[in-house]
Amino acid sequence: MTTTARSLASVDGLQRLTIATPDRPLRLDNGRALDHVEIAYETWGKLSPAKDNVVIVCHALTGDQFAASENPVTGRPAWWPTMVGPGKPVDTNRFFVISTNVLGGCMGSTGPASRRPDGHVWGADFPHITVADMVRAQIALLDEMGIDDVFLAIGGSIGGMQVLQWTVQARGRVFAAIPIATAARQSAQNIGFYEVGRQAIMADPNWCDGAYVEQDKRPDRGLAVARMAAHITYVSEPALKRKFDRRLQDREALGFGFDADFQIESYLRHQGQSFVDRFDANSYLYITRAMDYFDLAADHGGQLANAFRGLDTRFCVFSFSSDWHYTPEESRNIVQALNAAGCDVSYVSIETDKGHDAFLLDEPEFEAAITGFIDAIAEARDLPPADEAKAMARGKGKARP
Amino acid sequence: MTTTARSLASVDGLQRLTIATPDRPLRLDNGRALDHVEIAYETWGKLSPAKDNVVIVCHALTGDQFAASENPVTGRPAWWPTMVGPGKPVDTNRFFVISTNVLGGCMGSTGPASRRPDGHVWGADFPHITVADMVRAQIALLDEMGIDDVFLAIGGSIGGMQVLQWTVQARGRVFAAIPIATAARQSAQNIGFYEVGRQAIMADPNWCDGAYVEQDKRPDRGLAVARMAAHITYVSEPALKRKFDRRLQDREALGFGFDADFQIESYLRHQGQSFVDRFDANSYLYITRAMDYFDLAADHGGQLANAFRGLDTRFCVFSFSSDWHYTPEESRNIVQALNAAGCDVSYVSIETDKGHDAFLLDEPEFEAAITGFIDAIAEARDLPPADEAKAMARGKGKARP
Repeated sequence: MTTTARSLASVDGLQRLTIATPDRPLRLDNGRALDHVEIAYETWGKLSPAKDNVVIVCHALTGDQFAASENPVTGRPAWWPTMVGPGKPVDTNRFFVISTNVLGGCMGSTGPASRRPDGHVWGADFPHITVADMVRAQIALLDEMGIDDVFLAIGGSIGGMQVLQWTVQARGRVFAAIPIATAARQSAQNIGFYEVGRQAIMADPNWCDGAYVEQDKRPDRGLAVARMAAHITYVSEPALKRKFDRRLQDREALGFGFDADFQIESYLRHQGQSFVDRFDANSYLYITRAMDYFDLAADHGGQLANAFRGLDTRFCVFSFSSDWHYTPEESRNIVQALNAAGCDVSYVSIETDKGHDAFLLDEPEFEAAITGFIDAIAEARDLPPADEAKAMARGKGKARP
Repeated sequence: MTTTARSLASVDGLQRLTIATPDRPLRLDNGRALDHVEIAYETWGKLSPAKDNVVIVCHALTGDQFAASENPVTGRPAWWPTMVGPGKPVDTNRFFVISTNVLGGCMGSTGPASRRPDGHVWGADFPHITVADMVRAQIALLDEMGIDDVFLAIGGSIGGMQVLQWTVQARGRVFAAIPIATAARQSAQNIGFYEVGRQAIMADPNWCDGAYVEQDKRPDRGLAVARMAAHITYVSEPALKRKFDRRLQDREALGFGFDADFQIESYLRHQGQSFVDRFDANSYLYITRAMDYFDLAADHGGQLANAFRGLDTRFCVFSFSSDWHYTPEESRNIVQALNAAGCDVSYVSIETDKGHDAFLLDEPEFEAAITGFIDAIAEARDLPPADEAKAMARGKGKARP
C-alpha cells in the first residue's frame, strides 16, 4: 500500500479518488444512482503491513476531511487537533488515519456543487442522500485503497451516525467504534431546528431554487441565519451565560437599535458570516436532510437492537451532560440497544457545561477516556503499544531521504 | 366610570385611547419621546363603584388585547379563554378586566406600523421601546380611564415581564401580581434565538430597511422563519416527541426531497405561514428587542431584591417544569429576590410536558392554583366572593334595557 496524500493530490490541491463510474455507479437509498462520484480525503500516519491499523474519522455537519491538518482551501486549522495527531488519542504515529469529505459535502467530494456529466452544476437536482449513502461511499473508497478492515471508526454528531452506520453496513469489518454525542434517530426537535435553517436558505432569493452557482449568486444571508439558529443548539445555556451572559459588545450602554448590542449577538453574527465563506448552502440542505432521515432502527424492523445483533465490534459510546442537541438520553438508548443485542459496549458520560460542541473542544477527561479505550482495543487487536509505534514511526522518519 | 367597549370603538373597529399628545408626550427610556400615542385595548366585566376590581392582563410577544373575546380583525378566537371570562379564574363576572395592545404592537396601538405626524409610516424609524415604556403607556391609559389602583396584574412570558415591571413602576398601585413563565432578565440564549429571528426578517429583501409598508411589500418569508425558530422554543422536546416524533406527513415513505416529509416540518411551516397574516414584522423586531433589554435588576443597582424592596404587592409566581424558554430556575430567582426583599410571595411550579406555551393551554392544575390565589387576595382586599359577584352581575344584566 503506497497511497499517500501527495500522490493522489488532484489539480485543485485536494486529494480525491473516483469511487463510481458509469460502469460501476453508486446506488443510493432513494433508488437513484450516481454515475460519477469522487471522494476527497486526507490521511495521516502509515498503513501497517498487516493493514490492521486503519482509523476512519467521520466529520460532523460542517466539518471536512481536514481533521488533523490545516485546510489548504480555507486556511482554517485542523478541526480535531485535540483528538487526532502524533501522541494524541488517535495517535498518527500508531494508526493510519483516513478522513473523507462526505458524499454531498463541499470540500472536494461529489455533491450539489459538483458538475454533472453534462457540465451543469447539480444544484437542487442532486439526488437526495442518506447517512448510509455517505458510508457506502466511504466503504467504496477503502475498497479502492485496498483496505478491508477498519480498526476504529470514530466521529461526533452526524459523524457518530456514520460510525453507527459503519458497524452495521460494513458488518464484520469494523473492530471498534466510538460514536460521540450522537443518536440512532434524529429527534423531532432537531428536524425542526434544521427545517428552520433550510427554510432560511430557501427563502433567500439568491438561492434561485438551488441553481445559484449557475446564476453566479450566493444565498449567504439565508445560510448565515441557518448557521446562527443551529449554532445555539451546539452550546449549552449555562455556557452561553458563562461566556456572554448579558454583556454588551464594544459599548457602555444599550444602543437602542438593531445593531449587535450584546456579545451573544455579535458572536452569533460572526458565526453566521464566517460560515458562508467556507460552506455551500446546498450541501447544508442535503446533509441536514440526511441527518433528518437517519433512523437506524427503522431499517431493522423498528428495533434498534436488531441492527446491532451479531456484531462483534467493540463500542464505546460518549455523551456530554449539557448536550441538548444530542442528549445523553439518546446515547443511553444506543447503549441499551447494544446491550440488548449482546454487544461489547462501554458508555462514558462526560460532565461538562460545553454542550454538544464539547467533542470538538479541549476536554481532558474525554481525551483520557478515548485514549484508555483505544489502548485497550489495540491490545485486544494485538497492535504494538503506543511507545513502540512511536519509536517505529521515529525510526522510519529518520530513514527517509 | 362609564367607559365601555362600545363607546370607545374607533373607526376601524378597535377601541383606543390617546395617551400622549404634543403637549403631553410619552417619554421613553431611550431619551426620545412620542408626541402621539394611542393605546388599543379591550375590557370585560364592570368596574365596581369603589374601582377596586381592576385586573390588567398583559399579553405575550405575539398576543394582543383580545384575551377573552374574538379578535374582529383576524377572526381568531380569544387567546386566553381558559383564564379570562365568566366563571374563569379571572372571572369577568367579578372583575373589570383590561387588556391593552402593547406600545410597539400591531393591533391598534402606536407602533412601527403607525403613521407619524407627517403622514409617513414609522417603520424602522420608530423609537426603540422597553418593557418599562410599554407599562408606562398602560399606566397612562388607566390614568386616562380614571383608574388609580390595579387589583391584579397577570401575564405570561413578556406579559410576565410587564407584570413585574408594573409592581415596581406603579409602586403602591398594584395589589397583587401573577408573573407566569417569565424572567427578571432575558437570558443570553433567548437573546440569541430572537436575534436569529431578527436576522431572518432583516435578511428578507422585502423588509426594505424597515420601510416595506411604504414600498407596498411584506417580508413574509423572513417573518415566517423567525416565527418557526421561536416556536420550537415554546414547546418542550418531550411534547414534540409525543405529538410528532418522526411521523410522516401525508405520505407512507420518505420523499427524498425538501418538501415537508415529517409532521413536525409541516407543523412549523404552518406556524410560520399563519403568523405572517396576523403580525407585523417590524413589531416583531421592536418587541423582541424590548424583551432582550429587560433586566429589572440592572435598573436597581444590579440587585433584583432592591427592585422589590418595600412593595406590599402580593405575588404568586408560576413556572412550568418543561419550560426551557423561561425556565423554572428563572422563576425561582424572582421568588428568591422577592423573599430577600421581604415581600409576600407564593411560588407554584406546575408539572407538565407542554413547555413554555403551557400557560396558554388547558392545564387544570394551573387554573386551579390561579383561582385559589385570586380568591385569597380578593378576600384580603374585601372584595365580594365569586358567587355574590356573579349574582350581582346577573342582576345587573337583567336590569339592563
